[in-house]
Amino acid sequence: MPRYKLTLEYDGTAYNGFQAQEDQPTVQGAVEAAILAFSGERIRIAAAGRTDTGVHATAQVIHADLERDWPVDTVLNAINAHLIKQDVCVLSAEYAPDPDWHARFSATGRGYLYRILNRRPQPVLERDRVWHVKKTLDAEAMHQAAQVLVGLHDFTTFRDVGCQSKSPVKTLDVARVSRFGEEVHLVFQARSFLHRQVRSMAGTLVEVGLGRWTAHDVKAALEAKDRARCGPVAPSAGLYLSGVRYD
Amino acid sequence: MPRYKLTLEYDGTAYNGFQAQEDQPTVQGAVEAAILAFSGERIRIAAAGRTDTGVHATAQVIHADLERDWPVDTVLNAINAHLIKQDVCVLSAEYAPDPDWHARFSATGRGYLYRILNRRPQPVLERDRVWHVKKTLDAEAMHQAAQVLVGLHDFTTFRDVGCQSKSPVKTLDVARVSRFGEEVHLVFQARSFLHRQVRSMAGTLVEVGLGRWTAHDVKAALEAKDRARCGPVAPSAGLYLSGVRYD
Repeated sequence: MPRYKLTLEYDGTAYNGFQAQEDQPTVQGAVEAAILAFSGERIRIAAAGRTDTGVHATAQVIHADLERDWPVDTVLNAINAHLIKQDVCVLSAEYAPDPDWHARFSATGRGYLYRILNRRPQPVLERDRVWHVKKTLDAEAMHQAAQVLVGLHDFTTFRDVGCQSKSPVKTLDVARVSRFGEEVHLVFQARSFLHRQVRSMAGTLVEVGLGRWTAHDVKAALEAKDRARCGPVAPSAGLYLSGVRYD
Repeated sequence: MPRYKLTLEYDGTAYNGFQAQEDQPTVQGAVEAAILAFSGERIRIAAAGRTDTGVHATAQVIHADLERDWPVDTVLNAINAHLIKQDVCVLSAEYAPDPDWHARFSATGRGYLYRILNRRPQPVLERDRVWHVKKTLDAEAMHQAAQVLVGLHDFTTFRDVGCQSKSPVKTLDVARVSRFGEEVHLVFQARSFLHRQVRSMAGTLVEVGLGRWTAHDVKAALEAKDRARCGPVAPSAGLYLSGVRYD
């Protein structure tokens, strides 16, 4: 039974998140339905990261175990043919590197992009793809403050109360804030993240960009290990799972 | 009576083109309705270029004459407030430089971008924003062939049969084809364009990118001055009016 590694792009707007639910459209549900339609096999897929409602992916990674050994190109084209009306597609398909390889448990790094449209007029071409922040953000100040979050920390402040991770201690490897014209992009990389950690950090850093918080305030909030000290959680529309690393 | 110069962004997917029509959603209709809602004035706007159904703009320019002299910031914010459910917004508002200034007749240059998503999987995040071409395009060959079109020519071959322009003779100032990862971008600049000229040129150049046509074939088609010699017309979804120049 071959295990396939599939990389997915999706627009999360119309899905109730990644994870399959009864009677709700989800990314997992759409992909599993397409696999069933092409192969006749009713399987469960596993993903590197479960994204929330409205969160997008430019490179989510999943695995799928199929009874029959199809060529990878057949898997790619056949699943995509059955996803043509959906908001998800398979960008690449390959055999898993070894039988124990697991999309989630073998992942050693995850990357997220958070996109902010920073202008007065509302988003039109990028609607549902960005967080709209009207007041001009100081991206440099955001970048400086973001460095406070890099490293090994107890991220309780930046963790959703419903987070099921055993420990709030994580290592944030990269936090980068850059302006590209009227967009401000936040890039975060870590082995793994807590639930809503990226959106909690992004929302807090926007407070810095607006001049309401300083880097010192971010540090104090982190050290308080208190969810109540987090800034506003940034909306899901700006968030993209942008890559998964496997060593 | 002040004349305002407004720059618009729009997603053309849900509109029946720019130009107002009875009982059809159009960009012009949406903007004029928003102006009426904010000012009580029922006016006609004029645009630098009338775009077809499904064509987008990142910087269309229009003018609007209002009885009352509103501050430009009020005009921007008030129109946008009434466009919040629409697929168009005002990016900037300013007073026209002089009373004779006209969005269309004073324009001395127009720029278009044509975006192709060049990969096997269907567009998801960029659906309705790009032309999807599955086979790998030779962007360099397309760029070379595009140079055949630069300069003063009779563009009858690349002109829609319904085009109402008096003359098919135009000067194409810039034709540039570049690859950006899995996207191929075509940039065209001229004082003005014939109806469907950009999509006709883009579709023809894709034939070159696919290896079916050579630059010599493009030259022969141009010199034939025969609409039947044009390649397939590229779909509207990839086209953006990206700028208007005024001297």
